Amino acid sequence: VRAVVLTGDRTVEVEQVDDPVLPGPRGAVVEVERTAICGSDLHLYHGGMGTGVHLGHEFVDRVLEVGSEVLRFGAGDRILVSGVIGCGRCQTCRSGVPGNCEANRTAVFGSSASLPGGQAEAVAVPEVDEFALAIPEGLSVESAVLLTDILPTGYLGAQRARIAPGATVVLFGLGPVGVMALQSAQLFGPARILAVDREPSRLARGAELGAEVIDASGGDAVAQVLEATKGRGAASVIEAVGADQTVSDAIACAAPGGTVSVVGVNLNPAFPYPMGLALLRSLTLSATLAAIPATWPTLVPLLDSGRLTPDAVFTHRLWLSEAPHAYQIFDARQDGVLKVLLDPKG
Amino acid sequence: VRAVVLTGDRTVEVEQVDDPVLPGPRGAVVEVERTAICGSDLHLYHGGMGTGVHLGHEFVDRVLEVGSEVLRFGAGDRILVSGVIGCGRCQTCRSGVPGNCEANRTAVFGSSASLPGGQAEAVAVPEVDEFALAIPEGLSVESAVLLTDILPTGYLGAQRARIAPGATVVLFGLGPVGVMALQSAQLFGPARILAVDREPSRLARGAELGAEVIDASGGDAVAQVLEATKGRGAASVIEAVGADQTVSDAIACAAPGGTVSVVGVNLNPAFPYPMGLALLRSLTLSATLAAIPATWPTLVPLLDSGRLTPDAVFTHRLWLSEAPHAYQIFDARQDGVLKVLLDPKG
Amino acid sequence: VRAVVLTGDRTVEVEQVDDPVLPGPRGAVVEVERTAICGSDLHLYHGGMGTGVHLGHEFVDRVLEVGSEVLRFGAGDRILVSGVIGCGRCQTCRSGVPGNCEANRTAVFGSSASLPGGQAEAVAVPEVDEFALAIPEGLSVESAVLLTDILPTGYLGAQRARIAPGATVVLFGLGPVGVMALQSAQLFGPARILAVDREPSRLARGAELGAEVIDASGGDAVAQVLEATKGRGAASVIEAVGADQTVSDAIACAAPGGTVSVVGVNLNPAFPYPMGLALLRSLTLSATLAAIPATWPTLVPLLDSGRLTPDAVFTHRLWLSEAPHAYQIFDARQDGVLKVLLDPKG
Amino acid sequence: VRAVVLTGDRTVEVEQVDDPVLPGPRGAVVEVERTAICGSDLHLYHGGMGTGVHLGHEFVDRVLEVGSEVLRFGAGDRILVSGVIGCGRCQTCRSGVPGNCEANRTAVFGSSASLPGGQAEAVAVPEVDEFALAIPEGLSVESAVLLTDILPTGYLGAQRARIAPGATVVLFGLGPVGVMALQSAQLFGPARILAVDREPSRLARGAELGAEVIDASGGDAVAQVLEATKGRGAASVIEAVGADQTVSDAIACAAPGGTVSVVGVNLNPAFPYPMGLALLRSLTLSATLAAIPATWPTLVPLLDSGRLTPDAVFTHRLWLSEAPHAYQIFDARQDGVLKVLLDPKG
Repeated sequence: VRAVVLTGDRTVEVEQVDDPVLPGPRGAVVEVERTAICGSDLHLYHGGMGTGVHLGHEFVDRVLEVGSEVLRFGAGDRILVSGVIGCGRCQTCRSGVPGNCEANRTAVFGSSASLPGGQAEAVAVPEVDEFALAIPEGLSVESAVLLTDILPTGYLGAQRARIAPGATVVLFGLGPVGVMALQSAQLFGPARILAVDREPSRLARGAELGAEVIDASGGDAVAQVLEATKGRGAASVIEAVGADQTVSDAIACAAPGGTVSVVGVNLNPAFPYPMGLALLRSLTLSATLAAIPATWPTLVPLLDSGRLTPDAVFTHRLWLSEAPHAYQIFDARQDGVLKVLLDPKG
Repeated sequence: VRAVVLTGDRTVEVEQVDDPVLPGPRGAVVEVERTAICGSDLHLYHGGMGTGVHLGHEFVDRVLEVGSEVLRFGAGDRILVSGVIGCGRCQTCRSGVPGNCEANRTAVFGSSASLPGGQAEAVAVPEVDEFALAIPEGLSVESAVLLTDILPTGYLGAQRARIAPGATVVLFGLGPVGVMALQSAQLFGPARILAVDREPSRLARGAELGAEVIDASGGDAVAQVLEATKGRGAASVIEAVGADQTVSDAIACAAPGGTVSVVGVNLNPAFPYPMGLALLRSLTLSATLAAIPATWPTLVPLLDSGRLTPDAVFTHRLWLSEAPHAYQIFDARQDGVLKVLLDPKG
Repeated sequence: VRAVVLTGDRTVEVEQVDDPVLPGPRGAVVEVERTAICGSDLHLYHGGMGTGVHLGHEFVDRVLEVGSEVLRFGAGDRILVSGVIGCGRCQTCRSGVPGNCEANRTAVFGSSASLPGGQAEAVAVPEVDEFALAIPEGLSVESAVLLTDILPTGYLGAQRARIAPGATVVLFGLGPVGVMALQSAQLFGPARILAVDREPSRLARGAELGAEVIDASGGDAVAQVLEATKGRGAASVIEAVGADQTVSDAIACAAPGGTVSVVGVNLNPAFPYPMGLALLRSLTLSATLAAIPATWPTLVPLLDSGRLTPDAVFTHRLWLSEAPHAYQIFDARQDGVLKVLLDPKG
Repeated sequence: VRAVVLTGDRTVEVEQVDDPVLPGPRGAVVEVERTAICGSDLHLYHGGMGTGVHLGHEFVDRVLEVGSEVLRFGAGDRILVSGVIGCGRCQTCRSGVPGNCEANRTAVFGSSASLPGGQAEAVAVPEVDEFALAIPEGLSVESAVLLTDILPTGYLGAQRARIAPGATVVLFGLGPVGVMALQSAQLFGPARILAVDREPSRLARGAELGAEVIDASGGDAVAQVLEATKGRGAASVIEAVGADQTVSDAIACAAPGGTVSVVGVNLNPAFPYPMGLALLRSLTLSATLAAIPATWPTLVPLLDSGRLTPDAVFTHRLWLSEAPHAYQIFDARQDGVLKVLLDPKG
């Protein structure tokens, strides 16, 4: 089958790779219907983590074959698969939180050779009973793709920001995850959402989605937030960028007693956290790795009833064979790209 | 001053009554700017609870005079006053929940001779520091009136229904409180709200506000709810009517593990509660008397940002002198009346 | 195999019955190691629900044989089994709450012919992966038996009473479930627990377990509770009897804003609920059918560390062959009986 | 009056200072009955923050005089005063959380010249209605002193650690605040509390209070915690030391999905927070400045019923005149000192 392979720094190629095989009696082999590129794929794309990886953790598919112990799915079923999986047998995995797998077997599709990714024509899915969902009738394929990672991530970011009805929320970042967080934050009844970004097209989208937008290109985002909140800041702050600067800014925007929820990927082992400020303001800082399957019972009905309409995040629909170009424009933020969907049929 | 006085069964008159006097050093005398008729006023109007009461617990006003120990308000301030008050000194009153006053001094304006109501040109307000709010700049007078009772009541009804994001909600009753509950329920991120009523105009309004409406005029509301939920019922049910039948129907619509939140006024001392069903389904039943001031910090920002827009509930604006007519049409549900606002200037 | 069979009103016999067979590929056949009699068995014992039922829903055992699709257990494993089961495949069952099975297949062992009970030498267990737990090393067989029903029931009763640290709790009933609720209530940090019963031995046990006990034999339990709480009542009330009178008393003891959690089995289809009082006091009433497996991750560590020590509830240890006598004394509350453990070896 | 004054690095003296005067119409002047030295007083004692400050924020007293607008207290009342105060008029102050004062007027007694402290014969108390509590009958003076700061602080530290029943808790530090946190953590029903310290006397006390103690003197506290938790760590971690090392160790001991609650005073503006680890484990970090009055309704009943018995933390009772010696031994941790109570009568 063909797969998107990381072949060098800022280089991916679509290569012919070995056909996937059943990953044990609880796994499945699936044919990919659509797949997407995630901001976290760019971490690998930017190099330094080795080459040869088959990329992609956002994909929906049709089951080709299941192992002998698979109970919930069979060949022909259309499913979506959590981008993050675990051992599948511990209580935490069984409750839909593979990111906290008690056996320390948390893994992300397409991030290492041991779990090839879904930007491919077909892929192997371990522990499919625990980490996949039959695609509900009426759900668009785009929404299904978003359920594999970034919609749950954005939702959890909003949830962990502990937004009370009537609260003011600040959101840093209107990229794909930020847009998911923005739409999710609306579910918790805030009075206001202040959304910060630098790009006009992203700010415009934020405004369309009901946010009061703040242009950070002048470097004074914190000052603008404080002015808009009479110096008080916001009880709930969501960071969906992952840069040290935006995390620091997010903390500076938190009102006393407030919560900063980080869903941007920041892997700094020694981020300079202002502990004194946090003490004086009784702040809470949460970071979140998506507990993807745990969110599906919440998110599917919201998609089904049209209360959540995240599909518009996809600005580009390309063939799998165009993945090299897709990565280039996504990395460079060209063409007004926000999110790219790939179709393995071409 | 003139006041609306209950003079007989289904009879109110606008009479000249004694001017209000300061109710102690922590009280105020206020000039009423607008006042409204509440569904619970009809309980008195229907008779059997004595006559002579000066009616009305929903009013906004301008302060004329304050007692020597009043700290937060002074003459000339525009304030709105909680329709329910308490001792004002216990911890529960101080936390904005006079309905649970620890000194057992919970009282409703306009429900007895000891606390004359606000459907008048002027009225006395005890413990004004604890039970009034300066009207925020930009807030409409209609919204201010709604904050004195039915918006908090509807909000608490929704809150106590424990609506989780993605949940299905059933709401019985699209009267004034029901409309407040419907708008409040939206703040908790449900996937669906099924709203039940019998009147076409009310159902139409519910649909405009985003509900899936169910016409109960055929007597099969429960069956329709169960059909719309694949036999499962709803995790959260709000009852905003108060009749035995609608409370029973609300209970029958609750899914296993669900919550029924009653904000309709039902005073039955022996309501036939299906304890066996409640056990088998692990149900929760909550009744709520409005903790009005406790909701203001939540509701004011939502009104301010336009996220809540409850003003449209007022279908009729009349002079105080027209109160007899207003009670008649409100009681008879004539003229498409949903909520009546009275202006003491005329 | 031998089993305890209901043969008439207030009559059980130990009879030879057919050997259990595998209940499908996801089930098991188990050899019972110990079993107990539950207060709810007495509902059947008192007659009127037909005869022939093999009784018992509290049992621990050793697996004899498993179906082809059973993943977590095998022959020889020592397990404890939830007294309540469901379809085992819906999300609610999978989250450990079979009482709310979405397929409406909630069932209690030993309550009907279709699911023979565990007061027997061997029994069939459907959906064993979802509803059984490997008995942790070091756990006493008595604690294991209690985990199959009454400890989870008592715990959930306490949990649903929403006990805040520092609160006052009232508990009606110091029978087996009441004792479990009492020990569980201590986990939530109340300042006081007032425990109500009529029997001196039960009151003495309650006092040993840290409760302030109230002797209800004079019929003035509510008055005593109100006196002990300065007329205020308690924020959290647990009812563990199930009689109409004790449920009514429990409601009367709830402070404004309080919660009444019923775990006693009351199947009254028209219990006279004081709706007006509930409204004026903003009360919450919860009934609970045990979500047994969902509590195990909480309760097992508490038993393991010795923080919960419920074993003492067993006052009698008899052979299975002595079941007729055991039912008699348990029903008559003779011999100071609180809870009976049966050993199928004799 | 005499007061303890900071006169140099590691030097305090008991000096004659001006008599306190009424701090406005909402304040009081009080005669101090007992006062204590807090670990945070040592931050000032260690120098570098200027001299001349009248120290002390933990004190109980008798009211000498109140301002004209004080409603709840009068001369002769015995009261305890929150060590932290605010404007007293904003909603946050009124809800008992002066640390988050909306007017940014949060202040600690005895930390600057503008709010002289309570290690004195008499002191001025602003906004006494909001920040004082009449000492309940039967409460020991020691408990009353502990309610002014460290018991609320320890309680909030435990509360914000989000301890679920059955959870494992790790506590770093068995100093005075740590002991309060340990006793408070027990209120939330954990299965185990692992308490870490280096001093044998403190470890012995921790064991007496029900903790499994871990001697950190070998530098391997984290390894010991992980071994004791099968490599998993704890869902709830409380840090009650404030050093960078113990905060780092606390973070390293948190299980996936866990919470680290810091109540130790760490004012590092750039604490090296392991953001990548926090992301992979979905950690939450909370810091807390005591919301002291908000905890009183919870803590007073627990003290009253004897469920909390924190008095034993006081190891030394001295005259106010002995303050210089008291500071020396407390700073040096001599004489087995844990907490010092001072009596202004001598």
